Amino acid sequence: MTLLFSDEDVAATLDATVTVVAMRDALLAAYAGRLVAPPRASAPLGGGRMVLTAGHLTGEWYGFRSYDTFGHPESGQLVVLHDARTGAVRAIAVGEELGSRRTGGLGGVAVDALARPDAATLGVVGSGRQAWTQVWAAAAVRPLRKVTVHSRSAARREAFAARVRAELGVPARAVGSAREAVAGRDLVVLATTSSTPVLDAADLAPGTHVNTVGFKQANRHEFGADLLDAADVLVTDSPAQAAAYAPPMLAAVEPYAGRLRDLGAVLAGAVPGRTGADEISVFCSTGLAGTEVFLLDRLVRVGAAAV
Amino acid sequence: MTLLFSDEDVAATLDATVTVVAMRDALLAAYAGRLVAPPRASAPLGGGRMVLTAGHLTGEWYGFRSYDTFGHPESGQLVVLHDARTGAVRAIAVGEELGSRRTGGLGGVAVDALARPDAATLGVVGSGRQAWTQVWAAAAVRPLRKVTVHSRSAARREAFAARVRAELGVPARAVGSAREAVAGRDLVVLATTSSTPVLDAADLAPGTHVNTVGFKQANRHEFGADLLDAADVLVTDSPAQAAAYAPPMLAAVEPYAGRLRDLGAVLAGAVPGRTGADEISVFCSTGLAGTEVFLLDRLVRVGAAAV
Repeated sequence: MTLLFSDEDVAATLDATVTVVAMRDALLAAYAGRLVAPPRASAPLGGGRMVLTAGHLTGEWYGFRSYDTFGHPESGQLVVLHDARTGAVRAIAVGEELGSRRTGGLGGVAVDALARPDAATLGVVGSGRQAWTQVWAAAAVRPLRKVTVHSRSAARREAFAARVRAELGVPARAVGSAREAVAGRDLVVLATTSSTPVLDAADLAPGTHVNTVGFKQANRHEFGADLLDAADVLVTDSPAQAAAYAPPMLAAVEPYAGRLRDLGAVLAGAVPGRTGADEISVFCSTGLAGTEVFLLDRLVRVGAAAV
Repeated sequence: MTLLFSDEDVAATLDATVTVVAMRDALLAAYAGRLVAPPRASAPLGGGRMVLTAGHLTGEWYGFRSYDTFGHPESGQLVVLHDARTGAVRAIAVGEELGSRRTGGLGGVAVDALARPDAATLGVVGSGRQAWTQVWAAAAVRPLRKVTVHSRSAARREAFAARVRAELGVPARAVGSAREAVAGRDLVVLATTSSTPVLDAADLAPGTHVNTVGFKQANRHEFGADLLDAADVLVTDSPAQAAAYAPPMLAAVEPYAGRLRDLGAVLAGAVPGRTGADEISVFCSTGLAGTEVFLLDRLVRVGAAAV
């Protein structure tokens, strides 16, 4: 019996706390070598590619996420969970919700591990699905007192601020510039589709933690080298994937690569995270492969426990 | 709204005639260049691989089949159909039924295109799922009068013969040797898991058509070069996939490669098929990529029409 989850099902079952805990477990499993997550595989289909990112939690499950690069409006993604003992397909999630909650959850783990314990103000640039799940997850690990949001569309940033107030119960305000959104904040989220920098690192207060979700490669990036230069602590969820991008992530080439830390290693205590209240920490999100399947497994368990 | 089909749903909706017609349409679309079917992509997961075979019917749909090589008892396969206009996931089939009916359907097209019009007796070696769908599809394109079956397990071959009688209404008999099963038959199906030849080409009557579904590579093969030497007409559903196997299919290397014809080209009339009643024709089944998605699309259409 295969369970099929829609976006609505995922939204109703996976809250931010469950998601962040699951992603912390996933990062620790990957660091311990129990979560096998090979490079993505893809098949060219003429006008687009079908892409598969797979994962295997030894003895527990294996599976994959599939998506395509046609750029269609609905671009239905799939996450598939197989039982590692029988091979049976236990569950399938269709849509975008699981994937964006996954990315949000990884961001929440980064905030929890790297931001100052007293971080309470958050500035976000971007007002899409990814921006939302970053704030949603951050609110689960820090008691936010204020959110400021900027994006190019005034209507969308106003709607985003209203959603933060309504769903997260946090005072939120839309502002007219990225600078106004991020200046002096404890936490900053960049979640845009911009291929040129939207942030000036000089606007960041000492002690700020930054999560970056958008483009961050050598040829297109929502932030510039100034942010990497300003960072005292530079972390990613997958150094291997960061280096495997074509072209690689800015933070995965010299002079930054030698400083780029694995979030799983930070969680495991193998390498330090933030060591001072005035440090600037930057998390470069890559979306560790296998984490979508990890989260689908958690969804099935949480759903079963709730019955 | 994504439709989810189980093996039972597939079995209830896709009869042999619909399946053979769909596979003929797929082969013609591939020959015309409308069905894009790239080489398979795979991701290593430690102990097994996740494999994806994709397809794209221009302007209509794209999708993939996924399976793994862990060798688990249930080894759940997935076939996924996306709408090519919106990207939405229209349907998913979980299990093995769609895939084996697909392979059976390709075999049925080969029988219809290559066997003598008056072919009426069929001998099959093998009694598994693949053997069944070959006979099931052959019965849809030729009025079978007699089926003989051999496999190593007496119980399984008896059960197979009983199923042919019950479900196809064709007289059927289990026999004690492969030779007894195939000697003098109009149609022969090899659908074994054997890596060494189970057939002596000298046992075949002139005019026989053979479908081979099992191993057929240089290093393991359910039939030997004697069958290829005896064949006047040598056909496969995908010369490209046959050559891409590692090692390649016996029929895709010299001295046979130059004679190996594309079933789609035969259907389109671009190259001849059988040209005489005494010729021996051999169909080497590779399972043209994209045909599972093609069949899922047909299943959705047939199902919708039946409502």
